[in-house]
Amino acid sequence: MQSLDDQVPRDQFREAMSHLAAAVNVITTDGPAGSAGFTASAVCSVSDRPQMLLVCLNRDASVYEAFKQNQRLCVNVLQGGQKGLAEVFGGKTPNTERFGAASWIKLATGAPVLADALVAFDCEVSQVCAAGTHDILVCAVKALHWGSDRARTGLVYFSRAFHQLPSASHP
Amino acid sequence: MQSLDDQVPRDQFREAMSHLAAAVNVITTDGPAGSAGFTASAVCSVSDRPQMLLVCLNRDASVYEAFKQNQRLCVNVLQGGQKGLAEVFGGKTPNTERFGAASWIKLATGAPVLADALVAFDCEVSQVCAAGTHDILVCAVKALHWGSDRARTGLVYFSRAFHQLPSASHP
Repeated sequence: MQSLDDQVPRDQFREAMSHLAAAVNVITTDGPAGSAGFTASAVCSVSDRPQMLLVCLNRDASVYEAFKQNQRLCVNVLQGGQKGLAEVFGGKTPNTERFGAASWIKLATGAPVLADALVAFDCEVSQVCAAGTHDILVCAVKALHWGSDRARTGLVYFSRAFHQLPSASHP
Repeated sequence: MQSLDDQVPRDQFREAMSHLAAAVNVITTDGPAGSAGFTASAVCSVSDRPQMLLVCLNRDASVYEAFKQNQRLCVNVLQGGQKGLAEVFGGKTPNTERFGAASWIKLATGAPVLADALVAFDCEVSQVCAAGTHDILVCAVKALHWGSDRARTGLVYFSRAFHQLPSASHP
């Protein structure tokens, strides 16, 4: 056994983590600190009563202050055909151009909801846990939105590539 | 806008959350409180320096006390062909039979590491955040293990069905 004080090399950790498949989401906010958005795969369900999910956010990210101050966000789960939008919100595109790349609505919290998301979770941030370089934003889900596109597929990132998955059911 | 005190109906939340694709993992522990394991999709990367991930665990789960007391766990990311193992660890199979369904090794922490996992993260639990019905277990990664199977695929759960994804790269 190795010492528990050891860590694994960072590049090996990143290679391993790239094999944890995950949905691709655009996380958005709006409020007193203005609008902001970023692409994230570190999102997961927490609890279904009360309905909660979590989003991990790097405290060094340029969008961090907006999310911290607004205390509300929308998790927009992308459809299979929305790889381009993932790239716009994951790159160096200025904030205003990011939101110009798609259509948005508002629901309960005022965070931008992607009109043609696969599904979107409009949330209030209810709790923040600092962990390493990141904050874990624990969110209470206040409203849902389904995009109207009938050919529903999911967009997944795995092994450093985008993949599409077919959906068997939707409302 | 709806009131922020409202919640979305639970069945609608579950239907929406079923469209957040996620990797399928078997989470295992061993230590003073004995061995235990369960299938989970609520796992995500947190930080790459220090290397951390998180796992969500229902405090009402039968395995909860073992994980809480042992303070160590392994996230075994399943390969495309391991749907059967996901079902064994996700159902009512007794604990001893669960572990009899596969081969295990030990690395840094002593938690059972699935010999033919796609990749496995051997971890110490470093922090616990209670959120609703669940605990968010924030874990420091102490060792990695790659299964030897060369035909690497990932196992993903999406829209209440298992899917296989091809891997473009592996070490």
